[in-house]
Amino acid sequence: MTIPFFDRRNMNFVLYEMLGAEQLTSYDYYREHSRETFDAIIEVAEQIAREHFHSHNVKADKNEPVMIDGRVTIIPEVKEAIGHFTEAGFLASHHREDLGGIQLPWVVNQACFSIFQAANISTVAYPFLTIAAANVIEAFGSEEQKARYLPPMLDGRCFGTMALTEPQAGSSLADITTTAVPTPEGHYLLRGNKMFISGGEHELSENIVHLVLARIVGAPPGVKGISLFLVPRYQVNPDGSLGEHNDVAVSGLLHKMGYRGTVSTALNFGENNRCVSYLIGEPHKGLTYMFHMMNEARIGVGMGAAMLGYAGYLYSLDYARTRPQGRLPSNKDPQARPVMLVEHTDVRRMLLQQKAYVEGAYALGLYAAWLVDQHKYAPDEQIRKNCGLLLDILTPIVKAWPSEYGLKANYQAIQILGGYGYTREYPVEQYYRDNRLNPIHEGTNGIQAIDLLGRKVTMFDGAAFKRLLAAITETIEQAKSEPVLKEWTGQLDQALTTVETATAALLETLGQEGIETYLANASLYLEMTGHLVLAWIWLRQASVACRRMESASGSDQKFYRGKLQACRYFFHWELPKVHYQSQILRNMDRTCLDMQDDWF
Amino acid sequence: MTIPFFDRRNMNFVLYEMLGAEQLTSYDYYREHSRETFDAIIEVAEQIAREHFHSHNVKADKNEPVMIDGRVTIIPEVKEAIGHFTEAGFLASHHREDLGGIQLPWVVNQACFSIFQAANISTVAYPFLTIAAANVIEAFGSEEQKARYLPPMLDGRCFGTMALTEPQAGSSLADITTTAVPTPEGHYLLRGNKMFISGGEHELSENIVHLVLARIVGAPPGVKGISLFLVPRYQVNPDGSLGEHNDVAVSGLLHKMGYRGTVSTALNFGENNRCVSYLIGEPHKGLTYMFHMMNEARIGVGMGAAMLGYAGYLYSLDYARTRPQGRLPSNKDPQARPVMLVEHTDVRRMLLQQKAYVEGAYALGLYAAWLVDQHKYAPDEQIRKNCGLLLDILTPIVKAWPSEYGLKANYQAIQILGGYGYTREYPVEQYYRDNRLNPIHEGTNGIQAIDLLGRKVTMFDGAAFKRLLAAITETIEQAKSEPVLKEWTGQLDQALTTVETATAALLETLGQEGIETYLANASLYLEMTGHLVLAWIWLRQASVACRRMESASGSDQKFYRGKLQACRYFFHWELPKVHYQSQILRNMDRTCLDMQDDWF
Repeated sequence: MTIPFFDRRNMNFVLYEMLGAEQLTSYDYYREHSRETFDAIIEVAEQIAREHFHSHNVKADKNEPVMIDGRVTIIPEVKEAIGHFTEAGFLASHHREDLGGIQLPWVVNQACFSIFQAANISTVAYPFLTIAAANVIEAFGSEEQKARYLPPMLDGRCFGTMALTEPQAGSSLADITTTAVPTPEGHYLLRGNKMFISGGEHELSENIVHLVLARIVGAPPGVKGISLFLVPRYQVNPDGSLGEHNDVAVSGLLHKMGYRGTVSTALNFGENNRCVSYLIGEPHKGLTYMFHMMNEARIGVGMGAAMLGYAGYLYSLDYARTRPQGRLPSNKDPQARPVMLVEHTDVRRMLLQQKAYVEGAYALGLYAAWLVDQHKYAPDEQIRKNCGLLLDILTPIVKAWPSEYGLKANYQAIQILGGYGYTREYPVEQYYRDNRLNPIHEGTNGIQAIDLLGRKVTMFDGAAFKRLLAAITETIEQAKSEPVLKEWTGQLDQALTTVETATAALLETLGQEGIETYLANASLYLEMTGHLVLAWIWLRQASVACRRMESASGSDQKFYRGKLQACRYFFHWELPKVHYQSQILRNMDRTCLDMQDDWF
Repeated sequence: MTIPFFDRRNMNFVLYEMLGAEQLTSYDYYREHSRETFDAIIEVAEQIAREHFHSHNVKADKNEPVMIDGRVTIIPEVKEAIGHFTEAGFLASHHREDLGGIQLPWVVNQACFSIFQAANISTVAYPFLTIAAANVIEAFGSEEQKARYLPPMLDGRCFGTMALTEPQAGSSLADITTTAVPTPEGHYLLRGNKMFISGGEHELSENIVHLVLARIVGAPPGVKGISLFLVPRYQVNPDGSLGEHNDVAVSGLLHKMGYRGTVSTALNFGENNRCVSYLIGEPHKGLTYMFHMMNEARIGVGMGAAMLGYAGYLYSLDYARTRPQGRLPSNKDPQARPVMLVEHTDVRRMLLQQKAYVEGAYALGLYAAWLVDQHKYAPDEQIRKNCGLLLDILTPIVKAWPSEYGLKANYQAIQILGGYGYTREYPVEQYYRDNRLNPIHEGTNGIQAIDLLGRKVTMFDGAAFKRLLAAITETIEQAKSEPVLKEWTGQLDQALTTVETATAALLETLGQEGIETYLANASLYLEMTGHLVLAWIWLRQASVACRRMESASGSDQKFYRGKLQACRYFFHWELPKVHYQSQILRNMDRTCLDMQDDWF
């Protein structure tokens, strides 16, 4: 039996019908591409994902990495799958041709990656971390560093990690204590402990490059004294051959609720004071460089969360369509044949909710990737700038919203399967466990909330926030003429005003009462703004569906009807929440701020 | 290190200050009791729970029951713990003295049980199932059945199960096919398969009694043809000694996400056509009898969900108080000492949300148990009747609300611990996995929603619903005079009207458009009404806190302040949801009803 985990029809809808990804080929950087090359690459991704990733998703969960005699052992399917991924060129696909890439637009890349995430989130984490680390080296590394480390990272001989978190500091990067001492030879000696380092040790690749945040001795305190270092597991000789093992040791593995296939390590750097490390870029600018990687990783986390939600949705849909159970309430004849689960309105509610969440999150994630392409390569400078602003303000939402609502979708998938859904004999319970990590890693959602309200809303004098409002208004204006969408454009307009009013009230508070009160309810602000953004994304999808439906027939017409119904669900059942949330924010509710430790 | 999992201070608050449980001792049935006997029994429960249940909670999760040579093997700590539970008299405590009980009020019983649930939900499931099965036999069994089965069930030699679900029927009990054939000897021969039977096979007790739903051959179709049977694992001779093994076989174990210590079995009855079974009560009345057990079990599920949420709350509170991390946003000095997590407003939000959910659910659960006592033993017939009505209408809420919101609390506990919370090295991830079962078993929350709107709201011409509204109104009237509560009484009054209006609109629809439209959004109705009820419970707690605070000092005063702040959280952050939910219901929203299978 083929278990469905991915919906190509919907990918085409978002990629081509909503985002018009073919149009990117008119940009110079993407000129070698066409819809045909995109489709061919997506086809390859889908095949590899199905045959080599999805096939061991359950096995990897049941056989997590173990340390045997100091070596991390991982089931062989993982290495084999990554081999196929690498061989097909996905490690380097978005890079310039001279680096071995094919200059594939980031949005098509993300579309391909989303299939792997749906198939097996924990195995694909290894190449994803490598891609992200390579991007940092490409952007900020010296020519020598690029020459030495990029080629093996782009052809799969060397994997990458990001090593930020320390056991004592958690989310507070200002407090990291890993220290770098300069040597006369030009490199540094690193010393410190890092925690929750995914892919921190394994035998999947010949070498591993850790990108590590540390302080050079004498650096200023806080985040302004953090530098970024490249720390190879094995030294790399000028000719590319591997030298001796560096002073990096695994002090233990973390045992996680989900994502079990991705080894999570605690690493000790410099236990023997010979951890050779190389400064990337300038001293004390490490956090800025790392945020380059982090922002990418955050979009990746959001997309992963959407895909786990998506896979659960598709599985529970298939189950609901094939499992007979009970009768409709109006049928009082106990001898009538049972109907399929999907016939029950409450089951359709659980399916529709999942659809609204996961297809919304998916479209948002690809839209963010499309913004990356525009920001980098659009010929028009104003477009580049505007897309950069949108990307800035949307990043915390792209990370946080799918991680909350993808998980809620997984909850409903289990609920549809009932007792079976709760057992390890069915895949939905694994999706639910896997997805619970996403509201935490790459910055908890509380950190995202502070990023949104504390930085992004106020940055450049509110330019990013204004750009977001303008983009939403444009969609409303365009959709207004369509009678079917009229009700929703009105609702979105109202919600927009509601969010704007709450934001203005908050900014007034910031001036009058200061940052503590301003940020007190930041998480609620993130939730409210997230729902506004998702409603906008749904209206965009509905507009496309409306336009296309006129000439569509058969399964296409049904597909578009489904889009409209999911949009209706979001506008009737979800969007209204922003109004009570806005009220709490406008009241400057002090309930949480005033709560005292000893009242708990 | 002692890990906190239970809060005695809050138990005392609910049991004595809010519910006035001592007053039950004025009822004839409870006349031998006093506050002192209650406290002594609770003390024993707390000690056994800590020393013998909590101590192996993690171990039971990591070592789930296995089948070895057809026998179910369970870690020895489980049997030992249940031995202490039994020895202390908890299996029989609520029963009459002539049955070996001590006539303990059900609310005090539940208070004790809640400690065991917080300590180890999967081990205590075995005695709980036994208690529930014994209650059914006591209520509906023949004198001979009582004489033969009750004594060993009340002293722990024989455990009980409830066997309803069949693999093909799931939630649809009308479709069960297990068949009972009468024999000339007066017993029946049973044949059929049951699924998800907790405690269905083990060596913890000498014998097991399964209470099984089945159809006598020739019975009417549907739920009106279901009878209840007593099926012992081993035959019991008239003298109480055990006879031969009955024809009940385990066909497999389920492997669950959580509750791993509770063995979940698939059972085959009558594979060799010699499964000797005894009819309980009259034929075709099995579902009514089983609902006696189910209603009790549903309150137990709600309480268990509350306690898992509670244990997670207490753990994350302890963590937040002792884990230094970061600084307040207004502190720009990176060299200042980090503050404890609890100092961050967003962490306090996550703690306050947990507190509002779990203490609300806990008070609701004990209130329901108190209603059981009133319904059975209050001298005033009107009180007995009214409490019975309240219990009827509240049962689906007592089951569903804590199972939703206890799980949400567990989500926040993990979030506070961050990456650590997601690992199996900390207990909060287990609570989260355990609690995911509660929205499913003993009737999924979708089933509870249909029970509430489809049966309970309309039963006795709406008498139960009216009784609930009246009870809420009484609390509002009593609280009005207190200035501190004025804002909340107004809000609750508004919410009450909102729920009432939505209900009236729904009932009108029922008459005009029929049952399908009426029940279409039943789950939302359950959510809305649940929040109304919880706000009511919180106002009751706040009223008590207000009254007591005047003369309180020290830690008591802080405790009451915490109660008021949690109530404030619920009224500011949660209760407003009922208004948009009511709007959807009043609109008779057809989004889910109109959705078509082939649009997904």
